[in-house]
Amino acid sequence: MTKKLGKQTIKFLNPPIIISTGTAVGPYEGEVSPFRDDFDQIFSDLLAGQESFEKAERHLMLTACYQALCKIQIQPEEVEFFFAGDLLNQLISSGFSALELGIPYFGIYGACSSAAEGLILGAMTIDGGFANRVMAATSSHNSSAERQFRYPTEYGTQRKPYSQWTVTGSGAAILANDGRGPRITYGTVGKVVDQGCTDPLHMGAAMAPAAASTIIQHLKDTRRQPSDYDLILTGDLGQYGYELAVKWAFESGGVDLSKVCQDCGVLIYGQEAKVNSGGSGCGCSAVVTYSKIYKELQQGKLGRVLLVGTGALHSPTSIQQKDDLPCIAHAVALESEEMVR
Amino acid sequence: MTKKLGKQTIKFLNPPIIISTGTAVGPYEGEVSPFRDDFDQIFSDLLAGQESFEKAERHLMLTACYQALCKIQIQPEEVEFFFAGDLLNQLISSGFSALELGIPYFGIYGACSSAAEGLILGAMTIDGGFANRVMAATSSHNSSAERQFRYPTEYGTQRKPYSQWTVTGSGAAILANDGRGPRITYGTVGKVVDQGCTDPLHMGAAMAPAAASTIIQHLKDTRRQPSDYDLILTGDLGQYGYELAVKWAFESGGVDLSKVCQDCGVLIYGQEAKVNSGGSGCGCSAVVTYSKIYKELQQGKLGRVLLVGTGALHSPTSIQQKDDLPCIAHAVALESEEMVR
Repeated sequence: MTKKLGKQTIKFLNPPIIISTGTAVGPYEGEVSPFRDDFDQIFSDLLAGQESFEKAERHLMLTACYQALCKIQIQPEEVEFFFAGDLLNQLISSGFSALELGIPYFGIYGACSSAAEGLILGAMTIDGGFANRVMAATSSHNSSAERQFRYPTEYGTQRKPYSQWTVTGSGAAILANDGRGPRITYGTVGKVVDQGCTDPLHMGAAMAPAAASTIIQHLKDTRRQPSDYDLILTGDLGQYGYELAVKWAFESGGVDLSKVCQDCGVLIYGQEAKVNSGGSGCGCSAVVTYSKIYKELQQGKLGRVLLVGTGALHSPTSIQQKDDLPCIAHAVALESEEMVR
Repeated sequence: MTKKLGKQTIKFLNPPIIISTGTAVGPYEGEVSPFRDDFDQIFSDLLAGQESFEKAERHLMLTACYQALCKIQIQPEEVEFFFAGDLLNQLISSGFSALELGIPYFGIYGACSSAAEGLILGAMTIDGGFANRVMAATSSHNSSAERQFRYPTEYGTQRKPYSQWTVTGSGAAILANDGRGPRITYGTVGKVVDQGCTDPLHMGAAMAPAAASTIIQHLKDTRRQPSDYDLILTGDLGQYGYELAVKWAFESGGVDLSKVCQDCGVLIYGQEAKVNSGGSGCGCSAVVTYSKIYKELQQGKLGRVLLVGTGALHSPTSIQQKDDLPCIAHAVALESEEMVR
């Protein structure tokens, strides 16, 4: 049987199972997020007891990983491979976490799409028979990301209405070939796209075409309709990008996402928060998916979810050199036990 | 049959074939390298006709990719997935190359071990049945890396005797499940190690323990001896790191590498060059392996080569925050057609 459908989609013949997840977030997420009761650990200060924001971020990643391990009572050495990525230069959150965990490590980078990239690569590892158990994790931290990509948060720079707020948080998922939990049934690997957006604060607009094109390709490759999913969950387009993606999918592919699509960046801070267009960052889609969404898939409240991780692949240097924002989106189909049985 | 041997090694049951490679280098490599006649393209200036060193680096990567494609007369759209990594923040060389190529893309990061990481992930993709043809590429550029990690080259900063010279170059390999060429038979995925090195210019010393431990683990997992290989090729430890790795492997694991081990960083500039300890960078092991080594594997002059890509996973920020250099090494066994038959 074929494992490749169409141009970009992998079909997992023995769908890997997400047997555990872990999440850790910062104080703001713990305060305002509608998912705050679903997060495993909330740190009450941005430093999480560490001496720098960067060290706090890796502490978040390690906390999420240990939460995921702890729930199923296994040790790091019982996990065969670790796929991790973050926004910091040279992926130091991931590299130092891998050092502490001692698990053979693959560093990955897809900006805010890294959580979906890790799930696809992890699922390929399991379904390909190369391991029985792997972990995938991502993290971001508002203060470490802001000072690296924009300005230190202490400057209090005024933000644009369409700017997004980097989530302080990390999520980890453990994938296995045996056990209980939602399955990963398909992975659609994104192409990098560029529709001419040059404003690095307008990431949602830049990423929307990538999200729409990956969703359209996924539906084409799998011969599914939007209505085959209970939820198509983009992450992280924010309010502006979300609206553009829905519009773009309809206009360029005739796909109506309006009834089924939501966005992690819009959801994470709820309606009350003062974060302009919504959340972003490698941790955003991870903490949303691995908390509330994972639980609802476990309980069967959600049957099928298409997670569409979106990432803007620019750097401060590429922006200075007048490059557009190249963007990508990877889609992962998550299905409850009942759906796959 | 099992695809996992011991703790860290994957055995490819249907060893993926490296059906083509491409390399592109800068002027210094084209002038002094003993492999200069084996490189596919040599650019006579560091800008490679572009307007910045960063854009030159991505031009090198694209050139290497197109060389690899051209040799087997296929188009980018005939390649199913693209695994790429580089040293620049947010992997802009890889991301922008993926944009131009239009191939579904996985960003990877393992510093100078990225070439080996890409080969392992690419081989898993082929052997797992998820694709028939994938490409893996890495790049580095002396002037873009130096100004990002250290000082702009225009400063003429004095270099330490053990410092390494970032290679200006890129290499790409096309892997397939069918065709002619050397096979990838095993991949040993590295753990991140830290032996207390804090000097970011002394990368060879920092990476040597990672190289030694991955080689020892590979030999243990596969029940092979160093003498089973015609060449164990580390990349890129430089002269100091190479000597330390050989010593470390013997003292910590009783493994004598002295007869069979060489290092891409030592080899690339030959004996004449004034680059202190040798070459480094994501492009170093790629251009050495995908030029001379690949050809000798094709011709059967080399039967078995163990490429051991080594990477230092620090960032300028982690150094400023007084972290040690965390390091990793991934090993990939490359075998001539005759060996695997």
